[in-house]
Amino acid sequence: MSIRVAIVGATGVVGQTLLKVLDERRFPQSEVRLLASAASVGRTMEFQGRQLTIAEATPEAFAGIDIAFFAASGEVAKELAPEAVARGAIVIDNSSAYRMVEEVPLVVPEINALDIRFHQGIIANPNCSTIIMAVALKPIYDAVGIKRVVVSTYQAASGAGIAAVEELKAQVAAYVEGRPLTAEVLPTAVAKRHYQLAFNVIPQVDVFRPDGYTQEEWKMMYETQKIFNDRELMVSATTVRVPVMWCHSESINVETKRKLTADHARELFAQAKGIVVLDDPAEQLYPMPIDFPDRDEVFVGRIREDISCDRALNLWAVGNQLRKGAASNAVQIAEAIIKDYA
Amino acid sequence: MSIRVAIVGATGVVGQTLLKVLDERRFPQSEVRLLASAASVGRTMEFQGRQLTIAEATPEAFAGIDIAFFAASGEVAKELAPEAVARGAIVIDNSSAYRMVEEVPLVVPEINALDIRFHQGIIANPNCSTIIMAVALKPIYDAVGIKRVVVSTYQAASGAGIAAVEELKAQVAAYVEGRPLTAEVLPTAVAKRHYQLAFNVIPQVDVFRPDGYTQEEWKMMYETQKIFNDRELMVSATTVRVPVMWCHSESINVETKRKLTADHARELFAQAKGIVVLDDPAEQLYPMPIDFPDRDEVFVGRIREDISCDRALNLWAVGNQLRKGAASNAVQIAEAIIKDYA
Repeated sequence: MSIRVAIVGATGVVGQTLLKVLDERRFPQSEVRLLASAASVGRTMEFQGRQLTIAEATPEAFAGIDIAFFAASGEVAKELAPEAVARGAIVIDNSSAYRMVEEVPLVVPEINALDIRFHQGIIANPNCSTIIMAVALKPIYDAVGIKRVVVSTYQAASGAGIAAVEELKAQVAAYVEGRPLTAEVLPTAVAKRHYQLAFNVIPQVDVFRPDGYTQEEWKMMYETQKIFNDRELMVSATTVRVPVMWCHSESINVETKRKLTADHARELFAQAKGIVVLDDPAEQLYPMPIDFPDRDEVFVGRIREDISCDRALNLWAVGNQLRKGAASNAVQIAEAIIKDYA
Repeated sequence: MSIRVAIVGATGVVGQTLLKVLDERRFPQSEVRLLASAASVGRTMEFQGRQLTIAEATPEAFAGIDIAFFAASGEVAKELAPEAVARGAIVIDNSSAYRMVEEVPLVVPEINALDIRFHQGIIANPNCSTIIMAVALKPIYDAVGIKRVVVSTYQAASGAGIAAVEELKAQVAAYVEGRPLTAEVLPTAVAKRHYQLAFNVIPQVDVFRPDGYTQEEWKMMYETQKIFNDRELMVSATTVRVPVMWCHSESINVETKRKLTADHARELFAQAKGIVVLDDPAEQLYPMPIDFPDRDEVFVGRIREDISCDRALNLWAVGNQLRKGAASNAVQIAEAIIKDYA
């Protein structure tokens, strides 16, 4: 099999990670076409020992493409995804533009790969925090059902793009060198106020909705319901940016429908696809975001029965938001398409 | 009124903050006696324009003292607090040694100042994370009752002492200068493994108990029950260290006994003692730990009705763990003693 692949937004941090993941996973592509805005046209990026030249992301650029990964804004996806589909490509979109559109599957392959069969050309990649949580919830959901989740996140700067990572690095450099710290990117580039992330935590990820939740918090509820195809699965999220580079961490409290012991949960996690259990308090073993710069799995630890509620568990999940939270999940979707959703 | 005060552990970060807070609050002391281990004897510290010389913390050192603030380890408190009491002093202890001893009042003055009247010489200052949460819970508790709290913390390095703050600073300096990062203090000096805090979050504060909870998490449940004198008030905590210097932040989900709207909660917080409301999402106004290096109040924002549960609220609280979480709460207890618990 030989697949012609396009990456829209190739120069961004998710686009770069997509290239890396396609290589690592030996994706069977015969061509990788890098597309970006006019400003990047002519730049080259290395892939498997060759220099690929970036072309402009226009409707015509999708001619002959089988799978188009979109790692760009929602606006770009809205404009160009239908053009790619019209030219015969299947689009896997990392933006939020199509996630809650009813006829667009929203897929985490460990959970609902078979939803891909309903696609009409576009498949959406969920929000990064949602993917990491959903992978961790899946074994519990299957075993005993889930009633309600209360989650607080510890999200890396990279979730706001490479500019946010650079801003964090510049802030700590300024601190060490005794210069004033400046902020122009976080909490989100479109916000009217920007706050220092170094030595701080910012309880805002993405923009606010009129109900006082942020978009990120809203996504963790509604995208999770769609992925599990369960409108009664309730999620209350508080999403917080922390001065970490690459991996998101999540403190997850899960109220289950039937009782599940921590020991049983640990066994379920150990057998689950895409999960690594790191949970030995006596050895101070638990996942931490600095430990996994290049891993695709979701790491789960601090698994314990909730002392405040008879049918609830606490757990701590860490995942690389650029990989499983974005690029790797998208490539897994593409692999599932090739294997007919297997 | 003229009170003779001793500070045990004067050279530590809580001891230093106690001196600062006694001055700021114009505490009516006629004498401040600084006590510490033999290693610090003879050193001086400035207080209200005078140089105070540190004496050794021995039983005899408490002669004539009215109020002894203990800002030392549990071991020191166990050894010397009874000696201070035997010499007529009232001890306000910041360690965990006496907090769960039944006849020792555990006091957050905004909540249970009147419990002081039961004291038999020792009054305990609660854990820093517990104090900050308890102050934020109080108005909700009084208005509609609280069934269960799920809390995830974002705790500053200072909670592990000044050595942890210095370690964090040294790690970011090493990062900026391209040197290897080392860790010898966090997550806790007595732990067998130490982890980098810079660009990381560590889901361990204090040591682990056999049930998989940390001591810190356990304290947030049992100390809160004691402060509110309510053994049915359930708290499930996940306590996490973040690369922040001084203030703790907490993501708090509160299940109430009766329904409380976010608007009503905001009014209650605005009228509550010791709380400042910072909650305007449209203006991106919410509390952040860098904003309050020198404030005693607990700052509350992100107040919203939980979309996953009809009788629950989410909120975000930030407090200075050295001040309201330790020194200022202790001085408030002393003020309440002087005013006969008013």
